[in-house]
Amino acid sequence: MSNELNRMTLSQLAPKIRSRQISPVELTRAVLEEIEKLDPVLNAYITVDAEGALQAARTAQRKIARGDYRGPLHGIPISLKDLFDTQGMRTTAGSKILSDRIPGEDATCVARLRAAGAIIVGKTNLHEFAFGSTTQNPHFGGTRNPYNADRIPGGSSGGSAVAVAADMCIASTGSDTGGSIRTPSALCGIVGLKPTYGRVSLHGIVPLSWSLDHVGPMTKCVRDAAILLTVMAGYDPMDPASAGEKVPGFARALKNDVKKLKIGIVPAFCFGGVDDEVAAAIRDALALLESLGARVVEVNLPNIELTSLVESILITAEAAAYHEHNLRHRGEDYGRDVRALLEVGSALTAVHYVKAQRLRRMIQQEFAEAFRKIDIFALPAAPVTAPRIGAETVSIGGMETDLPMALLRFACPANLTGLPAISVPCGLSKDGLPIGLQLMGRAFDEATVLRAAYTFETHSEPIPKPRIA
Amino acid sequence: MSNELNRMTLSQLAPKIRSRQISPVELTRAVLEEIEKLDPVLNAYITVDAEGALQAARTAQRKIARGDYRGPLHGIPISLKDLFDTQGMRTTAGSKILSDRIPGEDATCVARLRAAGAIIVGKTNLHEFAFGSTTQNPHFGGTRNPYNADRIPGGSSGGSAVAVAADMCIASTGSDTGGSIRTPSALCGIVGLKPTYGRVSLHGIVPLSWSLDHVGPMTKCVRDAAILLTVMAGYDPMDPASAGEKVPGFARALKNDVKKLKIGIVPAFCFGGVDDEVAAAIRDALALLESLGARVVEVNLPNIELTSLVESILITAEAAAYHEHNLRHRGEDYGRDVRALLEVGSALTAVHYVKAQRLRRMIQQEFAEAFRKIDIFALPAAPVTAPRIGAETVSIGGMETDLPMALLRFACPANLTGLPAISVPCGLSKDGLPIGLQLMGRAFDEATVLRAAYTFETHSEPIPKPRIA
Repeated sequence: MSNELNRMTLSQLAPKIRSRQISPVELTRAVLEEIEKLDPVLNAYITVDAEGALQAARTAQRKIARGDYRGPLHGIPISLKDLFDTQGMRTTAGSKILSDRIPGEDATCVARLRAAGAIIVGKTNLHEFAFGSTTQNPHFGGTRNPYNADRIPGGSSGGSAVAVAADMCIASTGSDTGGSIRTPSALCGIVGLKPTYGRVSLHGIVPLSWSLDHVGPMTKCVRDAAILLTVMAGYDPMDPASAGEKVPGFARALKNDVKKLKIGIVPAFCFGGVDDEVAAAIRDALALLESLGARVVEVNLPNIELTSLVESILITAEAAAYHEHNLRHRGEDYGRDVRALLEVGSALTAVHYVKAQRLRRMIQQEFAEAFRKIDIFALPAAPVTAPRIGAETVSIGGMETDLPMALLRFACPANLTGLPAISVPCGLSKDGLPIGLQLMGRAFDEATVLRAAYTFETHSEPIPKPRIA
Repeated sequence: MSNELNRMTLSQLAPKIRSRQISPVELTRAVLEEIEKLDPVLNAYITVDAEGALQAARTAQRKIARGDYRGPLHGIPISLKDLFDTQGMRTTAGSKILSDRIPGEDATCVARLRAAGAIIVGKTNLHEFAFGSTTQNPHFGGTRNPYNADRIPGGSSGGSAVAVAADMCIASTGSDTGGSIRTPSALCGIVGLKPTYGRVSLHGIVPLSWSLDHVGPMTKCVRDAAILLTVMAGYDPMDPASAGEKVPGFARALKNDVKKLKIGIVPAFCFGGVDDEVAAAIRDALALLESLGARVVEVNLPNIELTSLVESILITAEAAAYHEHNLRHRGEDYGRDVRALLEVGSALTAVHYVKAQRLRRMIQQEFAEAFRKIDIFALPAAPVTAPRIGAETVSIGGMETDLPMALLRFACPANLTGLPAISVPCGLSKDGLPIGLQLMGRAFDEATVLRAAYTFETHSEPIPKPRIA
């Protein structure tokens, strides 16, 4: 029985914890047992804090017992991508360079999660410094996809996606600079939400690229993402990019309704350069949303094909700025792939960067224009299902394409524009690998993004649990 | 009589034009006669369109006569910095490269000025491509300061400042990327307002530096600036940086009242690296404002001394991006100084640029923090009065300082932060050269900036007219 608890969603667990039908200690034990059982194969965690988690669970249990209930996260065991600073618990960013670093304080959003009663069971594996999409980490090992252990989980928040998919935690957090929440969420069959730029504080998150970084929830269902977002979000004077917009109770506002919702697509972009099975799943998902009352319309985004180029320039330049000192003095401590990207970033001129920012502004403007006519922009979360571990290219429509660039294609419009975007499972491929539908919304309108995803989730067939979990 | 008309302010002229006591044609003739008389010495204009101006004046006169009055700019002869696109009238940006360029349409704010009934008498001289502060133009000659013809007018909008100061137009417009409105306004004894970033459309303005460029009014008094700003401002879909904020009737809202207004200063910055006479004039101005009920308080802006360094990196890099093609193919067509700066910008790396943007964000954050405690930040508009033509350095407190960097010092905080800032005359030096008080405000709060400047202007001794006008 106890090892079934961890299979439940946050939304299912919360009322039962509140009414004391489920004990946080029992739940945390179930999660820790699952980690013990599965993590030797999946390698989702860099650090597991069983002792600390059980202690926090006992504290939560006592508080709840005496009526001091904090809300839906109280007593819930979650994991954090190992890029989120945790006071007294090492935060490696998946790197050798920071492998012994123990932060003196929590990241702002971690402090918020703890204050809401969440229990941190551990820190999940990631692509080194979040700069890549395979989560094959040279220092902490590769993370495997629970739907097929020969496949990557995607990245960079691969450990978080796997921990959630395989019930080794109830929910997790990720960061997303070029799809690092949405890509692994899609490839592992979970829900991942990249909020609006500035919505969740970046204070205490090891940076990858200042103008593109976002953090957000990775969960088993849409409602869980809504719950986490409300807790994580809000103005933080410690983050220069933090926005003052009000944070609604996203979960409470969720409606199962897409009537009259206008969903935009750019057919040549959304279905071009995409695996056939993925394209079919996205078309089916749109047809389902239409049958529920949404309208799908074509929009004009003339420069959308430039997004991955612009993203690549900005991300490598900004990462090179952050890593300048370490790259010079400890170059050999980086993995081969990350070091190569940082060297590309160091070689870019300011003129390259300024021109890319200029194009970015144009693309932002085009999206703003498109969103006058639509409420949601729909596209695949990734053009393919989980590629094999070790693959450097993927075959799409018979064309061999560079893997990182292929995965960036659908991810980066939401990073460049800062607009909120969710990945929600929309089926399995014939070989049993998850496919993700991506829905983007207006700035600070996560409510509509969540509503569309929730309605889709409610009416679509749930995907089967992973084989390995 | 007629050649006294051009000495009046826009605010004095408008009601008399409306009531038909003054004829736009007569007024335009007075302006054109002044140009004919003074411009051979002062060289404020690159292009004068006497024919077109008189024709527009006749049209305005007819319309007003039949009761079709457009508002306070109707029938008012103004000039435009020769960086503002004018349909059918060449727009050189003070360059050889664009010396034959005749735009097919007006810049957005020019179209707004024309629609409000303003008469364009001509296009004023500027530092080549607005990239400098002396307005000593290698292609169109140097502009002279009407208070002393051996002195520079400041720049880059030097021609506009001189045209206004010497009554060769009733009002003008400038652009301000690193003080180009405020510096010449201060050095020529007029009012110059750099609005909030995004307030006035940049569509149809030859760019210098996308993230730092602003355009705004240059006028004989504060009320005139308020009138022009209301006409020039407003959302423009053609400018990616344009803001949607409502544009109030700034002139109507002007109050002669600074009671309880909190004015912030950083003494070490505001009075350090400043000529003694300038510092004394700023202290006197603050004392006057205090005597009128304002409170002067010290604020903490720890990185304010970095502003000119950050500004220099951003401006040169962004200018190099815009000029990349021409610099490569027509390098010899640039003036020596501008070409050297563009070459510096081309040599910067993306890492330099990203780090400068990062510092900029920090400085913006510090100003946002300071503006929780104050309504206005006060500082000199320039650390010195107008330097001699040809001087490459200025002596401040016995130290020889590079002229462009000295002039950038007080200008760039408002460019980096995008906050609105005005320069208003606050006295003459012993050798008869104007000094400008600079007042910065909160984003989109030009109303408070204008109110503070208007109250100061109302209660302070007006500076004498220039000798040459």
